[in-house]
Amino acid sequence: MSQPNPKIGVITISDRASRGEYEDKSGPAIVAALEDYLVTTPEYVTRVIEDERELIGATIVELSEAGCSLICTTGGTGPTLRDVTPEAIEDVCAKMMPGFGEAMRGASLDAGVPTAILSRQTAAILGQSLVVTLPGKPAAVRVCLDAVFPAIPYCIDLIGGAYFEGNPEVVQVFRPKAK
Amino acid sequence: MSQPNPKIGVITISDRASRGEYEDKSGPAIVAALEDYLVTTPEYVTRVIEDERELIGATIVELSEAGCSLICTTGGTGPTLRDVTPEAIEDVCAKMMPGFGEAMRGASLDAGVPTAILSRQTAAILGQSLVVTLPGKPAAVRVCLDAVFPAIPYCIDLIGGAYFEGNPEVVQVFRPKAK
Amino acid sequence: MSQPNPKIGVITISDRASRGEYEDKSGPAIVAALEDYLVTTPEYVTRVIEDERELIGATIVELSEAGCSLICTTGGTGPTLRDVTPEAIEDVCAKMMPGFGEAMRGASLDAGVPTAILSRQTAAILGQSLVVTLPGKPAAVRVCLDAVFPAIPYCIDLIGGAYFEGNPEVVQVFRPKAK
Repeated sequence: MSQPNPKIGVITISDRASRGEYEDKSGPAIVAALEDYLVTTPEYVTRVIEDERELIGATIVELSEAGCSLICTTGGTGPTLRDVTPEAIEDVCAKMMPGFGEAMRGASLDAGVPTAILSRQTAAILGQSLVVTLPGKPAAVRVCLDAVFPAIPYCIDLIGGAYFEGNPEVVQVFRPKAK
Repeated sequence: MSQPNPKIGVITISDRASRGEYEDKSGPAIVAALEDYLVTTPEYVTRVIEDERELIGATIVELSEAGCSLICTTGGTGPTLRDVTPEAIEDVCAKMMPGFGEAMRGASLDAGVPTAILSRQTAAILGQSLVVTLPGKPAAVRVCLDAVFPAIPYCIDLIGGAYFEGNPEVVQVFRPKAK
Repeated sequence: MSQPNPKIGVITISDRASRGEYEDKSGPAIVAALEDYLVTTPEYVTRVIEDERELIGATIVELSEAGCSLICTTGGTGPTLRDVTPEAIEDVCAKMMPGFGEAMRGASLDAGVPTAILSRQTAAILGQSLVVTLPGKPAAVRVCLDAVFPAIPYCIDLIGGAYFEGNPEVVQVFRPKAK
């Protein structure tokens, strides 16, 4: 069975970045973290879009159909009126993965950020893509990715995505042996 | 931009307390905890109502429209047939905040209460109000509020509610500096 | 008020086990753990079924109507296309118990399994039955049950199920004293 080429989507969800009012720093921070973790060199497909629920959902569907095994979003997971990333993901993904949100909030709390409980981060499955929501603040991206990345390649294996090999000097990717 | 006056709603949800069969102790325990935490002296709007899903939802909407930036409920988060507070909140609030439930259950577990996992506590946003569910037992109210209060004033800032200032001798209210 | 006879349902959800392609080991592992915990000797009602959403829901309803105060499922909580146990449970149960999933994922993480965050385990109430999802791997069943069992007999008390007495040499069943 042929495996898909490794592709990763990165969607920056920010009204201001999408209007060019400031530079997108969290999207590049995600790419930098993934380049650091991975021996595999995937193609990165990046988007910068507004905090619009339908547009977010449509962009996730587009990148999933384009063959991205992992789709990371940044932004839109807070409590404000314009924060609608979790709802957009629930709209288009049937299968929610609550353990990712728990682990990312837990890691942020352990890092000394009591307001981590305000984050509505989550993850979900759409076809052969794993969708993971990351914070909008570049500094917080790495804390959250560190907490969940060890489980991501195996999750992508299970849903039939591309094979991703981690750099064992940076991250301990975990693939259980027995089924 | 003018900020709303500080108002806090406290809703005791209990069939027996609403019928006067026993004294409401958990509502006053919430007010006592908040008075302890806050330098700000808000107006408290209190209600004692039955465990009726529609009534709970309508009361939350009423207090939100009355300008309560924070609405604390007590009761109705257990597993029994009459425990319907989380469902009532989901009915009227579009945005759920799962991190609050995780943190409150975690704090109760750490306090040595294994049955904390039976609590279905959560939080949600309705307009410019943050709704937080607290346990029905007065002794458990403070454990849960202590776990989440440091993040509450900043959450209310983000949704355009009133400004609440904590007493730093009692609680470390956390407001991140950079956006 | 007469209490129901103690009955426990155990549903193995596995395409391969249901076709006889391999022996069901996780169902018997659940029964063995419960026999170890309990002084009470319930009747066990066991089923081995395919990963079909409607069938899973119907089997849970059947065992609840048959008087099972506790229904444990094993399998179907991962991220793959055929993993639909959580969705089947949401279809038939109105009241979800997120604290169980948090506690079980937390215990698996503490046991050194980073992929525990991929588990979508949860629990729910259906009538006078508590439904708890357990992993499909026999070795993981005990880790998860150990994490939540202390709260299970009291939960079943609250929803009007049978009375289960734990063996204090094996497990500390917790029943809070005051309401």
